[in-house]
Amino acid sequence: MKVGIINVTGYAGVELARLLRGHPEAELACVTGRSSAGQRLADVFPHLAPCELTIEPELSPVDFAFSALPHASSAGAIVPVLGTGARVVDMSADFRLKDASSYQQWYGVTHPASHLLADAVYGLPELARDAIRGARLVANPGCYSTAAILALAPAVKEGIIGPRVIADAKSGVSGAGRTLSLTSHYSEVNENFSAYGLGGHRHLPEMQQELTALDPALGLQLTFVPHLAPMTRGILCTCYGALADDRMGTGARGQAALLDLFRSFYAGEPFVRVVDRPPQTKQTWGNNVCLIHPTADWRTGTLIIVSCLDNLVKGAAGQAAQDMNIMCGFPETMGLEALAVYP
Amino acid sequence: MKVGIINVTGYAGVELARLLRGHPEAELACVTGRSSAGQRLADVFPHLAPCELTIEPELSPVDFAFSALPHASSAGAIVPVLGTGARVVDMSADFRLKDASSYQQWYGVTHPASHLLADAVYGLPELARDAIRGARLVANPGCYSTAAILALAPAVKEGIIGPRVIADAKSGVSGAGRTLSLTSHYSEVNENFSAYGLGGHRHLPEMQQELTALDPALGLQLTFVPHLAPMTRGILCTCYGALADDRMGTGARGQAALLDLFRSFYAGEPFVRVVDRPPQTKQTWGNNVCLIHPTADWRTGTLIIVSCLDNLVKGAAGQAAQDMNIMCGFPETMGLEALAVYP
Amino acid sequence: MKVGIINVTGYAGVELARLLRGHPEAELACVTGRSSAGQRLADVFPHLAPCELTIEPELSPVDFAFSALPHASSAGAIVPVLGTGARVVDMSADFRLKDASSYQQWYGVTHPASHLLADAVYGLPELARDAIRGARLVANPGCYSTAAILALAPAVKEGIIGPRVIADAKSGVSGAGRTLSLTSHYSEVNENFSAYGLGGHRHLPEMQQELTALDPALGLQLTFVPHLAPMTRGILCTCYGALADDRMGTGARGQAALLDLFRSFYAGEPFVRVVDRPPQTKQTWGNNVCLIHPTADWRTGTLIIVSCLDNLVKGAAGQAAQDMNIMCGFPETMGLEALAVYP
Amino acid sequence: MKVGIINVTGYAGVELARLLRGHPEAELACVTGRSSAGQRLADVFPHLAPCELTIEPELSPVDFAFSALPHASSAGAIVPVLGTGARVVDMSADFRLKDASSYQQWYGVTHPASHLLADAVYGLPELARDAIRGARLVANPGCYSTAAILALAPAVKEGIIGPRVIADAKSGVSGAGRTLSLTSHYSEVNENFSAYGLGGHRHLPEMQQELTALDPALGLQLTFVPHLAPMTRGILCTCYGALADDRMGTGARGQAALLDLFRSFYAGEPFVRVVDRPPQTKQTWGNNVCLIHPTADWRTGTLIIVSCLDNLVKGAAGQAAQDMNIMCGFPETMGLEALAVYP
Repeated sequence: MKVGIINVTGYAGVELARLLRGHPEAELACVTGRSSAGQRLADVFPHLAPCELTIEPELSPVDFAFSALPHASSAGAIVPVLGTGARVVDMSADFRLKDASSYQQWYGVTHPASHLLADAVYGLPELARDAIRGARLVANPGCYSTAAILALAPAVKEGIIGPRVIADAKSGVSGAGRTLSLTSHYSEVNENFSAYGLGGHRHLPEMQQELTALDPALGLQLTFVPHLAPMTRGILCTCYGALADDRMGTGARGQAALLDLFRSFYAGEPFVRVVDRPPQTKQTWGNNVCLIHPTADWRTGTLIIVSCLDNLVKGAAGQAAQDMNIMCGFPETMGLEALAVYP
Repeated sequence: MKVGIINVTGYAGVELARLLRGHPEAELACVTGRSSAGQRLADVFPHLAPCELTIEPELSPVDFAFSALPHASSAGAIVPVLGTGARVVDMSADFRLKDASSYQQWYGVTHPASHLLADAVYGLPELARDAIRGARLVANPGCYSTAAILALAPAVKEGIIGPRVIADAKSGVSGAGRTLSLTSHYSEVNENFSAYGLGGHRHLPEMQQELTALDPALGLQLTFVPHLAPMTRGILCTCYGALADDRMGTGARGQAALLDLFRSFYAGEPFVRVVDRPPQTKQTWGNNVCLIHPTADWRTGTLIIVSCLDNLVKGAAGQAAQDMNIMCGFPETMGLEALAVYP
Repeated sequence: MKVGIINVTGYAGVELARLLRGHPEAELACVTGRSSAGQRLADVFPHLAPCELTIEPELSPVDFAFSALPHASSAGAIVPVLGTGARVVDMSADFRLKDASSYQQWYGVTHPASHLLADAVYGLPELARDAIRGARLVANPGCYSTAAILALAPAVKEGIIGPRVIADAKSGVSGAGRTLSLTSHYSEVNENFSAYGLGGHRHLPEMQQELTALDPALGLQLTFVPHLAPMTRGILCTCYGALADDRMGTGARGQAALLDLFRSFYAGEPFVRVVDRPPQTKQTWGNNVCLIHPTADWRTGTLIIVSCLDNLVKGAAGQAAQDMNIMCGFPETMGLEALAVYP
Repeated sequence: MKVGIINVTGYAGVELARLLRGHPEAELACVTGRSSAGQRLADVFPHLAPCELTIEPELSPVDFAFSALPHASSAGAIVPVLGTGARVVDMSADFRLKDASSYQQWYGVTHPASHLLADAVYGLPELARDAIRGARLVANPGCYSTAAILALAPAVKEGIIGPRVIADAKSGVSGAGRTLSLTSHYSEVNENFSAYGLGGHRHLPEMQQELTALDPALGLQLTFVPHLAPMTRGILCTCYGALADDRMGTGARGQAALLDLFRSFYAGEPFVRVVDRPPQTKQTWGNNVCLIHPTADWRTGTLIIVSCLDNLVKGAAGQAAQDMNIMCGFPETMGLEALAVYP
């Protein structure tokens, strides 16, 4: 199957190229880029030298395309690709929010292709596998959103958490992309830790939308604060909310019940692992796994759920490839079997 | 004034030696260590070569002593020093909790000198300056506790926060000390992020004790989760709680009111700076300042307070020197004027 | 083919387990460890959870074994394994030096199995592929040695370098292993750079032995200085020597001639890539490639060769798997095709 | 004494502001910047908030000025300042090379003020204290140059080294400045190590000029290769050259003789410390010290000298302040007494 990547030159794009290089069914046939068009991929990204591709100005015909363009640009570029009959995973935010007015509110522009919103599927396989299977356009979830939604979904769906929820997330710097900025400048970020997006981060409405859909009656009120950690890859998300009732018990028995509930929820999932001990981002470095550890501060009745993943893999390119596998009927783990690189 | 440091060989100890080296009134006369006794300080810590001291097995007579021993050992070593008439700042946890049974519960040992608990003062100058002034024994607060208490004190004291509070803290690795362990092993920590202490961290009861004292009627229920960040120094603490009522207003007006409230609370404080924008740990690297930024998620009515400091300075040695200055009648900023080293 | 790893619990061991997990012909059947015997591999190394193995105290019968034991212990453990007919790659230094007295001089112990030295092959495929093919015992080269020998071999073999050679190498911290020590303690290593082994590093005699064999008449006098860089993985080696004569020309023509000479030398090699521009360690993160860039300071007539690799892959576990592939007649790149993980 | 900094907004500029803030005689009266003019220094650099300065478009009259402008711009800005009678330390490269044609060759532009070259003094106090004392214009040495010249000067001056010398230097990323570039982008630099400037780095002619002046008869042929290390601050320089003769002896006796020779050379120097063991960059973090460790590979007769310093302090702002102290008759260590911040 011929596959293309629109705008390969960001970190999500090159990570996807890396993953597709090892995929038995996907042949990476075309990669595009704007400022780098005409250059050999090997010259811009030496680690991709074996791909032996040149960065093209425009996408040639493919069976399946990924867009790694920024939001607003992405939707415009996808419309003609869909017109050729190719299926598409959009890694931008353009098709994540079902509501065009919400998109306008959070992204500050009119949606460039709102007629496609009804068709687009929010591509979190653990919650929407069937819908993804039949979709021709899948919106790849945000990196933070993947970590927060996977952490909170079992608690919301099973009704064990109250409506006021905090998601305190910590991300490596690659999440900010390859575009130069002082906030990604080495000497500014190294040995430094900060909170940002306190006025409202754009991944919040996705989280609110997807979690609300699991239990509209909860009246979820989600506060999300992202932080920047001095590392390249990895997101760890610590979620807090009041335990809804006494159903879980407390102490060791409560802990066992929480693990059971989460393990049942994710039974059979190839890329979610519910773990006994607090996970570490490095345990997912370079692979498509999301680790989740539910626990509680029994003293105050506070549910605490810690999740982590590699923001460029399960948080971006890996999940996109997983969506492709589902959409195309390949085994869901195809090309994504690699273990994390540790240490 | 002759000053001694008991157990100089940990990170808090050497940081204190560095600070005292530049103090005009304190003469660092004696430093002790156990395994390193007999060695020149310069051989173990080359950056302290100008101190020209040898590590002694026992403290010689001094006017003022700091203990950087671990808890349980520290109290035992302090008793005879107090007996000589010297005043003492204890950097361990031994005299932080007013209640010996709480100490036993959290530290797993019977308090070694509970008769001194009534005399000891919890040495957070911004909340207890007068008591520190007259004390002969001051318990230096924990690094996390300093960050969390300074962040939350104005909100608790002024009654603008509800009782359920989350303190999500992120610390550099030096907080774990110089003792070897796999969790401080470079290849395990670098490019990694994790939560720990989910079963209850020992700094929690200090926070609970000090914040409760500011408003016992609140019925504070504090959940505290520490995280390990891949950096050497720095703590950033993000605190969350429901806004107690509508008094603050919302939006830009609410933001201004929050800043005013926090600035009034810390008016005249030399080492607390309430800042307009989210602070970064690196802005306090190597100096004694705590930066605080209060804001809110007005959509959900959630107060968010971000504080940061250098865990080895305002979180340990710097605050200890500040306490000494207060106890001895020196200007409070003496020897602590250095700006942060940036970048 | 049933494969075992003796002493899986160091970084080379776990990296080998990761690589073998994706190898189509090698079935990782048994892993051993001393202090961790009886624990599930997943509990000690969560990223290896999918291997579903328990750490055994002793190796069960296998077709092929790797030893990741420290030197001196390793030889002793290998003797009985060879006795079962299994072939072995030893990742320790025990069989790298052909001369037992040299071993004694550099390692300070009598060689534990010197009768096997004549049979053992120094397992650098690019220089000894044929010998490796027929070997039953291969000594996996040191990480520094691989970087330095691959950089210098073309220059020595083709006679373009003088006898006095400097190899200035920089390594990530994982090269020092998983055993706790102050020199691998996060707060000591982070934001720090140092030289070590100035009195003579144990990889020097390997380099001297292998490079001398390429041109005994040169009278090579090699000085090797390793440095510790604040990163987990990666070795970069910068080699210097006088250009032997004017054969190469100078300037752009000289540069082209150097690239040609090196490219001819490594023609067809799957894991050595001679590159036009100075390489970066991160371009080999997690994969088995060695990048080499030859150039010169034409002003002073000094040949400069920069090589880099991942110390745990091409510098250890990857090269061991490559040796296994050769010894067993598998395609040499089998299981080692992964691209570097970047960024 | 009123002091000004032209172009405070780079890392050398803000570091100088930090140091001058603690200087008893220098009053930082004016700081300028181009794009940031009109902003409060505290808003651009929060750690400098206590300076309470606004960034000005132009320098107001001062007694002493530092220029932290880039080369070529700097000379032009300095001419009028000298005209006011103020003395100047130029932190750019404009007055480091005595020969305008060499400047043109290495910097690619005609020297903007070559009439001042004869007056300018290369401001390395350890080699030129007397000349600095009487100068009105001092050229602050490059960061790499300071590390390499201080390492090699004793060997060259005392005639113990041959003419072919290698300086292999490793620098933290702050040396590349605050201007955005992909080579300083966090995700590109972190966990990465590379060589650069292989075609000739601009600090080389300074080193060649100053070392040649110490012994013109040597016929020094210096090869200099800089490397980028994943850390913010610090330079470590490893220098190699043949021992000129047998004068030093070998082994322990040779080592002692080397230390003696270097210690004699730097006797009484407040900021150079010759150390018994290999130094680490972190032992100089934030202070003005250069550590030097001379040793040899006695087997091959190769002298090895390792030096390290903080590139922003002894490699830039600290040395500039040291020069000011000398020029103004202040104690040379004034304002520069701080110990390194460790860890």
